[in-house]
Amino acid sequence: MAIKVGILGYGNLGKGVECAVKHNPDMELAAVFTRRDPSCLKILTEGVKVFSADEAPSMKGQIDVMILCGGSAADLPGQTPEMAAYFNVVDSFDTHAKIPEHFEAVDQAASRSGHVAVISAGWDPGMFSLNRLYANAILPGGRDYTFWGKGVSQGHSDAIRRIPGVKDGRQYTIPVEGALEAVRSGSDPELTTRQKHTRECFVVAEEGADKEAIERAIVTMPNYFADYDTTVHFISQEELMRDHAGIPHGGFVIRTGTTGWEDEHRNVIEYSLKLDSNPEFTASVIAAYARAAVRLSREGQRGCKTVFDIAPAYLSAADGAELRKHML
Amino acid sequence: MAIKVGILGYGNLGKGVECAVKHNPDMELAAVFTRRDPSCLKILTEGVKVFSADEAPSMKGQIDVMILCGGSAADLPGQTPEMAAYFNVVDSFDTHAKIPEHFEAVDQAASRSGHVAVISAGWDPGMFSLNRLYANAILPGGRDYTFWGKGVSQGHSDAIRRIPGVKDGRQYTIPVEGALEAVRSGSDPELTTRQKHTRECFVVAEEGADKEAIERAIVTMPNYFADYDTTVHFISQEELMRDHAGIPHGGFVIRTGTTGWEDEHRNVIEYSLKLDSNPEFTASVIAAYARAAVRLSREGQRGCKTVFDIAPAYLSAADGAELRKHML
Repeated sequence: MAIKVGILGYGNLGKGVECAVKHNPDMELAAVFTRRDPSCLKILTEGVKVFSADEAPSMKGQIDVMILCGGSAADLPGQTPEMAAYFNVVDSFDTHAKIPEHFEAVDQAASRSGHVAVISAGWDPGMFSLNRLYANAILPGGRDYTFWGKGVSQGHSDAIRRIPGVKDGRQYTIPVEGALEAVRSGSDPELTTRQKHTRECFVVAEEGADKEAIERAIVTMPNYFADYDTTVHFISQEELMRDHAGIPHGGFVIRTGTTGWEDEHRNVIEYSLKLDSNPEFTASVIAAYARAAVRLSREGQRGCKTVFDIAPAYLSAADGAELRKHML
Repeated sequence: MAIKVGILGYGNLGKGVECAVKHNPDMELAAVFTRRDPSCLKILTEGVKVFSADEAPSMKGQIDVMILCGGSAADLPGQTPEMAAYFNVVDSFDTHAKIPEHFEAVDQAASRSGHVAVISAGWDPGMFSLNRLYANAILPGGRDYTFWGKGVSQGHSDAIRRIPGVKDGRQYTIPVEGALEAVRSGSDPELTTRQKHTRECFVVAEEGADKEAIERAIVTMPNYFADYDTTVHFISQEELMRDHAGIPHGGFVIRTGTTGWEDEHRNVIEYSLKLDSNPEFTASVIAAYARAAVRLSREGQRGCKTVFDIAPAYLSAADGAELRKHML
């Protein structure tokens, strides 16, 4: 029997989950919930209804897992515990520093209601975290490096758009190739923020705006740009739409560490992602953990889990014997 | 209380496990068991005794996990089930085609005795398998590629050494850079055996041997070399010892797959290893799974498991809260 999936929040991530469900034959979309007017929302899947977010609790029992596609700042801290009272849930909460308190809140709600909740599923946190953990467990004497990009940073693009005179903008985070090579060589470099990533901005200025002032405002902006080598390109709105409409991202998790009685051997573990679509890939990870959440729940488990707590086999639609035969 | 580790078999892998135990402060080496004369075996760890393999069963209760470091062809099919009657065990059984039957035999023994057994821990099978599974679960519409090397293949080196007139030899498996690039580009290439890897051989010929005949015997050898572009270099024994004494290896697991409603976006997941020491790295993976085996056993679990069945958190010496705080 197919896993019935609910989606709460229909932005880029929610749409990505809808696509991921389509790619997984053992899942079916049961309903989409929105805080907008449901009658105005057109989704991709035929025959599936859109409801108001308020109606979600009344559909308890009709949905095997509710996927929460809101934002980490304003939505998920409230939504995930709230929905865990009615459903198995999965979110992609990505405010790293607040994960412990989010975990506690969700764990309480899910433990009380008897559901399984998976938080922080995605790629960072998510697949990158997993690779940090595996690599640290294997090479306890070693060093971690994470690089992001090349990809669009939503937060940095927003920061650009808040500058007076800026009509639109897009920011790419780019790992420095030389830094990556130094890490891979096993030379254990100390790298500053500036040495690891550069930032490239494509900006549409309002007519008559002072471009020099805009550029200065960007490259000197504390936290966002001041610590980086930042380049700014002014382009037209048409060029922005044509060349920078996608939401690519990716990155690298590298751990280097030694083995041998006298640490005489170097080893490099590297995991990387190159994604045409950041939200769709995040949604694909979420879909796999939604399957896991439902299975764990059917086994009688409850409470909050992260990617660290879930055995890999739960993510796959194939059974244990099949996995051992074909993938081990 | 430290995890007490036993090692059965003291070749390259057993020695690697000894080094890995040294790198993990929550583990201690309890004993080494050998089928050779124990009095002739000198190990690295001071104060630890070497026993005859026959004495292992009598140490039941004094060892938390026994790590089996024999070969997959002749040793592990018998040893792993046998030792699972007395201990939690971990092996690195790597004959892919025979994993299902090995699993069954070990599962029976471990279930009966109430121990946890982990089979096929290492990097392939092992970390590569994990990455195949995760990537397949995330991108169900996609394609897998595995490349090995650059590294020393023991089986191919042995095959060279069996040729008449060959005194010594070492074989490197090398992934073809162009093939890797084609895969990473997302072009989904169909690759033949010859297009994926080349083989490079360093051969020490006996005095007066017919080098042309040796080279011909190598490059035409069915299964081992005939399907590859193989180069043969004749060198002196001194050069072989000086330049080719190490046992490096590594490789790449890549999955490319699409996301989006119409599969309009491409995504590339890549995992790679670059290892100065193949056996030491394998041993380091084994050590992490030995920790997991002991923890699972303490929780009351029993039976055979693979890397697919074990939640990542069990591999780490850190607890859940610490992992969520620092690695998620």
